[in-house]
Amino acid sequence: MQKKYYLLAPGPTPIPPNVLGAMAEPIIHHRAPVFVKVLEEIRERLKYLFQTKNEVLMFASTGTGAMEGSVTNTLCKGDKALVIRGGKFGERWAEICEAYGVVPKCIDVTWGEAVDPRVIQEELENDPDIRAVFIQASETSTGVVYPIKKIAEIVRKFDNTIFVVDAISGVGVFELPFDKWDIDVLVGGSQKSLMLPPGLAFAALSDKAWSFVERSDIPKYYFNFKKELKSLKDNQTAWTSAVSLVMGLNESLKMIQAEGLDNVFKRHTRLAEATRAGARALGLELFAPNNPSNSVTAIKAPDGIDGQKIVKILRDKHNITIAGGQSQAKGKIFRVAHLGYVDTYDIIIVISALEMTLRELGYEVELGKGVKAAVEILEKDI
Amino acid sequence: MQKKYYLLAPGPTPIPPNVLGAMAEPIIHHRAPVFVKVLEEIRERLKYLFQTKNEVLMFASTGTGAMEGSVTNTLCKGDKALVIRGGKFGERWAEICEAYGVVPKCIDVTWGEAVDPRVIQEELENDPDIRAVFIQASETSTGVVYPIKKIAEIVRKFDNTIFVVDAISGVGVFELPFDKWDIDVLVGGSQKSLMLPPGLAFAALSDKAWSFVERSDIPKYYFNFKKELKSLKDNQTAWTSAVSLVMGLNESLKMIQAEGLDNVFKRHTRLAEATRAGARALGLELFAPNNPSNSVTAIKAPDGIDGQKIVKILRDKHNITIAGGQSQAKGKIFRVAHLGYVDTYDIIIVISALEMTLRELGYEVELGKGVKAAVEILEKDI
Repeated sequence: MQKKYYLLAPGPTPIPPNVLGAMAEPIIHHRAPVFVKVLEEIRERLKYLFQTKNEVLMFASTGTGAMEGSVTNTLCKGDKALVIRGGKFGERWAEICEAYGVVPKCIDVTWGEAVDPRVIQEELENDPDIRAVFIQASETSTGVVYPIKKIAEIVRKFDNTIFVVDAISGVGVFELPFDKWDIDVLVGGSQKSLMLPPGLAFAALSDKAWSFVERSDIPKYYFNFKKELKSLKDNQTAWTSAVSLVMGLNESLKMIQAEGLDNVFKRHTRLAEATRAGARALGLELFAPNNPSNSVTAIKAPDGIDGQKIVKILRDKHNITIAGGQSQAKGKIFRVAHLGYVDTYDIIIVISALEMTLRELGYEVELGKGVKAAVEILEKDI
Repeated sequence: MQKKYYLLAPGPTPIPPNVLGAMAEPIIHHRAPVFVKVLEEIRERLKYLFQTKNEVLMFASTGTGAMEGSVTNTLCKGDKALVIRGGKFGERWAEICEAYGVVPKCIDVTWGEAVDPRVIQEELENDPDIRAVFIQASETSTGVVYPIKKIAEIVRKFDNTIFVVDAISGVGVFELPFDKWDIDVLVGGSQKSLMLPPGLAFAALSDKAWSFVERSDIPKYYFNFKKELKSLKDNQTAWTSAVSLVMGLNESLKMIQAEGLDNVFKRHTRLAEATRAGARALGLELFAPNNPSNSVTAIKAPDGIDGQKIVKILRDKHNITIAGGQSQAKGKIFRVAHLGYVDTYDIIIVISALEMTLRELGYEVELGKGVKAAVEILEKDI
């Protein structure tokens, strides 16, 4: 028998059957009244997800497209921007800035650690020319969650600086209330907590960010926030909507609303804690012990064992996809994601498979010890 | 009973059940070996579709994204470009050029007519600074097909000028052999002849176009052709692939290969001719009688009848989606598309519904006359 496939990578994440079903319906035209009605519903549902009264823009692209748009629509050529660079996605912010003539001033953070908000405060106080602070909510490459609330409290005091958060793997996983925390731009993507295939990206903008859009002089066309906002007010997108993904989105947003955001956050916390407990019980060290993200758990490969081998055995022998380390973390860590359409038994499966895999690689493991530790957390709220 | 839905708009187009099925399979990871294998297959299949030995890049975006990339990856700020502007999508080329500091020199063509290639030849001879000629293969807003082969023969003589063709509604509909005709950039989209939802875009580049990429200084990041080419050589995309759409793409490309490109072109010719014959038999005039596209037929609304009303009655009473006129053609024309997953009976349905609709609007029609004219063509190769 072909082995069942289990997906525990930090995007794409598993897709619920009803969402797959919605996407498999015969396609309808993107300007048909029935589709416009769907976009109208989605408009409100996205506000719920992003916890904002403002509009949430939607793009037919991956999350990187909305990251690019967040730079090109809010800043001017020659502007300075502070970039928190503690992983692969922090690097991406710096690359995008450089591509468009924005001068990135990078705060380099050791991979696996979070940035100290006081450093950001100092930088902003010392350099009044910094127009934006770019960060991730959850740095997927390291499994670190950054202190977004604290940094937002700092940036809000600087009238000429906006706070731009890549929350592609954060929105719908943990608390990131856009309006309440005074975040200025929050970027999301479809293939994480939203339980959809890749291909849709999102961006919410504060009034402060929209005022930045007015002065921005960087060229843009496909990712044009003003044009999208204008279309959105007619319940449309500026370009042809990615119809099938949008139909799926309406279903997944309904699921999130039915569960309730607080419950969604609790579920992710519980699964993350169980994963961490399972790893620790096997004697493994977390890569980000002090600031672990509830989206993805980065685990250090035991001494003498190549993390890529763990990923490969899980893939080839168990038909389970997790993620390895990237760039400087390659071979040193492996990453188990637990965001989106993931439940109790996905965690038990991956910890159990990890036990077998580690034994195969010669690492001493008491079978069931990791699973036991995970279940001790999971059974509380089954 | 809820009426069956018929989609005959110029994108999105109907999706075959097996393609819907492929997209509804549980999602796999975009770096998983099984997915990389799919991309490897698609790479070759796209070369077949585009009739080229060169690579065909793929983007998670709508066609407009690849149009933008075709400007920003090949040209430099301040470059001059000739834009054939005879419809809404010609206007789009000019807008993209302007957004990125390329100076568009527009040849304005009366809507419904094709450009005279000699005008292009004259412009290129008179102004050696023109670096690119931008055009549509099929101008979807007017139903006009442009003489791509003849224009390619002209542009190829100018070493410092590339020929960039938006063939979003042309590739896989009619003959556009990329290598043979010396086209330099050919842009495609998923929601037309490829029988997929919107969300994927394509671009093939000639060696001449790739040499332009080397000197281009316009900023870009998400749509970075060199970066995509590099990834493609590893059977990957630079950013996360739109996995579900890509799985569907492999199916639709298989269908096109099984049918054979020549047969695909013949099918579109036959359906287009039947549509035109049906319209003419009802006493209607074509908007582009001299250069009608085989993708979409633009038909003039009869005197005193609002074209938008025809679209609306077809939609609300018959549950059939066609397209109205855009901008200056609004109300004056309506457009019936016949590209992608469309067959004999779709044409009979739309002509039959059109007969009823015209009668309802007070236009005298002999019932069955349009259908008869269409069937006379369609029965030849049933």
